[in-house]
Amino acid sequence: MKTSFNVSTRGDTDIIDITEKVQSILTNSNIQSGIINVFVVGSTAGLSFVEYEPGLIEDLQEVFEKIAPKNKYYHHHEKWHDDNGNSHVRASLLKPDLTIPFENNKLCIGTWQQIILIDFDTSSRNREILVTIISDE
Amino acid sequence: MKTSFNVSTRGDTDIIDITEKVQSILTNSNIQSGIINVFVVGSTAGLSFVEYEPGLIEDLQEVFEKIAPKNKYYHHHEKWHDDNGNSHVRASLLKPDLTIPFENNKLCIGTWQQIILIDFDTSSRNREILVTIISDE
Amino acid sequence: MKTSFNVSTRGDTDIIDITEKVQSILTNSNIQSGIINVFVVGSTAGLSFVEYEPGLIEDLQEVFEKIAPKNKYYHHHEKWHDDNGNSHVRASLLKPDLTIPFENNKLCIGTWQQIILIDFDTSSRNREILVTIISDE
Repeated sequence: MKTSFNVSTRGDTDIIDITEKVQSILTNSNIQSGIINVFVVGSTAGLSFVEYEPGLIEDLQEVFEKIAPKNKYYHHHEKWHDDNGNSHVRASLLKPDLTIPFENNKLCIGTWQQIILIDFDTSSRNREILVTIISDE
Repeated sequence: MKTSFNVSTRGDTDIIDITEKVQSILTNSNIQSGIINVFVVGSTAGLSFVEYEPGLIEDLQEVFEKIAPKNKYYHHHEKWHDDNGNSHVRASLLKPDLTIPFENNKLCIGTWQQIILIDFDTSSRNREILVTIISDE
Repeated sequence: MKTSFNVSTRGDTDIIDITEKVQSILTNSNIQSGIINVFVVGSTAGLSFVEYEPGLIEDLQEVFEKIAPKNKYYHHHEKWHDDNGNSHVRASLLKPDLTIPFENNKLCIGTWQQIILIDFDTSSRNREILVTIISDE
């Protein structure tokens, strides 16, 4: 079963908790056991997990700024004369896909393990997230 | 088919080879061809691959220490007054999921490509690892 | 359905666009909807996505050089007296697997979101890439 949803972001490594949205799609599917693939379309966003609290959100933003600083020179800026070289590099490191097990129609994730969308682009965006559910029964 | 196993770790970016455990679950399933999803529950651990030998284990621990040093200030420490901000950040970068192809009931991995659990937490932990097998036949 | 293809690389964080190859395997399968798992065998290569243009390729190579510099000391070099410690570390951070949704027999990726093989090894290599297609219908 495949479906999608959209998320509005502020860009600039905005980090958004999408756990409830993914679980609600799983709930509606009524599929009991298997894996769920989550995928964000686009080359300047990524998916991961974090304990979703404001301190860690900031810690995570700081580590991406350290790995690929926003104001560094990027060769990519010569291609389109834009400013999002850091966004692409960060997205390639994190990747846009996750595959998560579920059982009894519930995501098998920890209490403090929220699914997050990170939008690395330098301005606000509307993101499409694809969800594919595969039964293992 | 879905099952799980537990691994005791020493924490502190302890790196444990779980290849044999995953292969033995696949062997017992008797499923011949497909993909196997491996997932560690919790927000301070991750999964990847490495040629499992002591030198590389140390090299990998050193690069995580460089990316997110243990003794740096983390905003997260103000939330619970604990000390594992680095563990969360490292885990979010690495992610807790892997999806691996298999054929003839064997993991399709290289000779030097071992599956590893990395426990980034600052103390020893017991980790639950979920394994889901999906046939492609 | 499972198949594989081979790619010749120059090593040294060579970045190769494999999107067309993966899409052509999907086209030939005639499977309409599901997920496709892509996996590179070996411990010194990885898979991700990028807007495939020369500037970003160079930006991405530079960030890997910053994270795990080629000429740094690696404990791994004592094991085999070789020089590819950086290659292993980079590959463990990036990981060798991707799982991508598809619909109407087409990969659900963005216009600027190409699938890439990154070969981190220090010399040219021939890489085997496994493709497994799982229907969700």
